[in-house]
Amino acid sequence: MKIAIVGAGAIGTFYGVKLAQAGHAVHFLLRSDYEIVRERGFEVHDCGTLSRVAVNAHRTPESIGVCDLVFIALKTTANARYSALIAPLVGPETLVLTVQNGLGNVEKLCELFGGSRVLGGICYATINRTAPGVVKTNGRTLLWLAEPEGGPQERTRALAELFSSAGLAAEVQDSLTAMLWKKLCWNVPFNGLCIAGGNIDCAQLMASPELVELAWALMRELQAAARALGVEISDAHLQKQVDVTVKCGAYLPSSLLDFRAARPVEVESIWGEPLRAARRAGVSAPHLETLYWLLKKLCV
Amino acid sequence: MKIAIVGAGAIGTFYGVKLAQAGHAVHFLLRSDYEIVRERGFEVHDCGTLSRVAVNAHRTPESIGVCDLVFIALKTTANARYSALIAPLVGPETLVLTVQNGLGNVEKLCELFGGSRVLGGICYATINRTAPGVVKTNGRTLLWLAEPEGGPQERTRALAELFSSAGLAAEVQDSLTAMLWKKLCWNVPFNGLCIAGGNIDCAQLMASPELVELAWALMRELQAAARALGVEISDAHLQKQVDVTVKCGAYLPSSLLDFRAARPVEVESIWGEPLRAARRAGVSAPHLETLYWLLKKLCV
Repeated sequence: MKIAIVGAGAIGTFYGVKLAQAGHAVHFLLRSDYEIVRERGFEVHDCGTLSRVAVNAHRTPESIGVCDLVFIALKTTANARYSALIAPLVGPETLVLTVQNGLGNVEKLCELFGGSRVLGGICYATINRTAPGVVKTNGRTLLWLAEPEGGPQERTRALAELFSSAGLAAEVQDSLTAMLWKKLCWNVPFNGLCIAGGNIDCAQLMASPELVELAWALMRELQAAARALGVEISDAHLQKQVDVTVKCGAYLPSSLLDFRAARPVEVESIWGEPLRAARRAGVSAPHLETLYWLLKKLCV
Repeated sequence: MKIAIVGAGAIGTFYGVKLAQAGHAVHFLLRSDYEIVRERGFEVHDCGTLSRVAVNAHRTPESIGVCDLVFIALKTTANARYSALIAPLVGPETLVLTVQNGLGNVEKLCELFGGSRVLGGICYATINRTAPGVVKTNGRTLLWLAEPEGGPQERTRALAELFSSAGLAAEVQDSLTAMLWKKLCWNVPFNGLCIAGGNIDCAQLMASPELVELAWALMRELQAAARALGVEISDAHLQKQVDVTVKCGAYLPSSLLDFRAARPVEVESIWGEPLRAARRAGVSAPHLETLYWLLKKLCV
């Protein structure tokens, strides 16, 4: 299968490398890392095992051309470039899969390329890009896949099988909305409060009773908004987000890394879109509103 | 009249000096500035005019003894020391006036010294302590005075006259609750958001549409809580807080100065007590709650 990776950060790099190692024709669209990757390939540290992987590196989507699958792991702050980056990769049979953070990505892609071409994904993984062309992971990943509308189809299951057979665990989900809001239950409070709570890691966050209480208030608002959208998120799921974060230790969420490096933070997709979705559904989310307004000021 | 000044920061120093210049026997209770003030007196820059004022400087309240008036301008973070600092100054006829920020001060003083001795005040002034023993002001001050319970009495008016005749404009107010909540309409949003909005001055705050919107949401919650407590705060008063802040330019609120200097910030009296008062009155204040929880983590 001919696959394009758009956005070769931690997730894009690791998934692309694994797909290439499984025999697919994977093409990476690169910007700042182009020279180094073309020269040296990617360096992947997976559970302590180092692999150097030569890949097809490109500077422009035109040099890649039409693909069977476009895997989008761009930061959502670059979504204004969707059309320029992706259109040259899309033909009549192309599937476009976004695994980007937050809300609004699938909708924009459907507008640009038609709902029949687009799929949504959520990636649970601990992968860090530690230098240009270098990623490190503990190897544990899980990809959730869902159709823009309705339940899984044959193509959803086929795509899950494609990833699974490349060693990348994948599961089909019944509802895109449920899938995205469940992930927001982690990203909204924990990415957000590590920034607004004073540029702190997850261990420092969890050591503050006030911030833990605020995390709960934020999760409750997401739960209420999701319910208004027809999605039930269980209390057990909320508790799990807290438990997982305790286990994270001094983990630095990706938004915090962006904040510390003075890179753009995905404020609109992670906080702005959910807030607007809650309002449209008639749900008041004042804690989220406060956090969003503060992050708009705090972040680039 | 024999007057003790407890808390000789900007407000305490300026008010004490003016009262001394008007002929009262003013005694300052000092800690870190004791040596320099005893040696050189205070240096007051009032509208560009420099005065050096020798004063009665004390290290302990016992060396001052019982006074007619105790003027409390301590930071509320030192309120645990009320009893030790103030009891030696209080006799059967003593009036205890607090001009401290936020809520809870009058109540604590009433508990300690009885409601018949205590008065509440709010000070509107632009005075900065620029160095030990040195304060600068544009000379414009206004002191509001109110009884702990009920409307003004003869003693309230007499105290206003005392300040006015020393060149310190003073007005009696009908309601302590109204007086304090009106002042909170500035302190809660603007002191708070200059810290939580990323350590910024008032001009930077007002340049952010999101933070201005958040300031309005906070003021609306205070307005609702005050209403539940029987106090009507007009929309015009809220608008005035915004207008005043625009005129402030790059002003640094006192809480921000404390934050920048890593000194304790008055988080409980300015944000915690109003939040708890709103809850007790059955008013939900989620924007204030979020700001309070963040400030608890951000501030010493």
